[in-house]
Amino acid sequence: MTTGRLAGGVLLAGLWICTVVAPAAPGEGMGRAEEHPIWMVLSRQEKAWNRGDLEGYMQGYWKSPDLTFYSGGTVTRGWEATLERYRKRYRSEGKEMGRLDFTEDTVEMLGADSAVGHGRWNLTLSGGKKVTGLYTVILKRLPEGWRIVHDHSS
Amino acid sequence: MTTGRLAGGVLLAGLWICTVVAPAAPGEGMGRAEEHPIWMVLSRQEKAWNRGDLEGYMQGYWKSPDLTFYSGGTVTRGWEATLERYRKRYRSEGKEMGRLDFTEDTVEMLGADSAVGHGRWNLTLSGGKKVTGLYTVILKRLPEGWRIVHDHSS
Repeated sequence: MTTGRLAGGVLLAGLWICTVVAPAAPGEGMGRAEEHPIWMVLSRQEKAWNRGDLEGYMQGYWKSPDLTFYSGGTVTRGWEATLERYRKRYRSEGKEMGRLDFTEDTVEMLGADSAVGHGRWNLTLSGGKKVTGLYTVILKRLPEGWRIVHDHSS
Repeated sequence: MTTGRLAGGVLLAGLWICTVVAPAAPGEGMGRAEEHPIWMVLSRQEKAWNRGDLEGYMQGYWKSPDLTFYSGGTVTRGWEATLERYRKRYRSEGKEMGRLDFTEDTVEMLGADSAVGHGRWNLTLSGGKKVTGLYTVILKRLPEGWRIVHDHSS
């Protein structure tokens, strides 16, 4: 599922570890999921989304009332409210989830237990219509694994 | 200039330091600039903006070609390009900077030298027209001080 992407290089700059992901030819390399646990979170989200599994997609988020989700000028607080927002937008009458693809991804560690990821989200809807935007996600290493604790999508 | 805001509490949760800022009555307390070096960056940006000093505002950003600025579905890379974007939007013919005010601010340390800040930006334009949106900024402690290295505003 890691279509057209491959971890391109690892830069050590001061205390930061910056993983830059460059486009790769389809089928090239192992893909990002094998490169870094944070790619695994994003890759699992793509996979879950693309099989229509919104609850599976939501496993990438911190299951907490303190999760923050910024989009369309609105702040959504909490995992449940974020799931509900997704349900209304993508699974209610006349809506569709489409096919999700993250591109132009960059992940950077910000400490031993924190990271930022940002890039572009792309949705291909029925009839080939494409919708795109940008995302910035803050992830933390929690007892249950790496989870998104803040998402700003626009 | 720290109108209506005051650092409300400091929570130590595991390795994270989370500073939550609650609304405060005007004139109450010292304001956020005195509380945390990261508030100082944001407060200086507000002050500079509100005296029409776009270059001063830009001092809050990492002066690097690797600064990333996400807004309106567009990725702007580099300090110079970001300044140019601001110039076009707020200082060209028929445009105005208005009065900037950050609200609903939250800053959280993500390691010794990294932090995330997010909240709402508010612009009051001539005639009282108000424009608002959300911001998420990643800051790093650099030799020159704390600077924003990634901004996602929508």
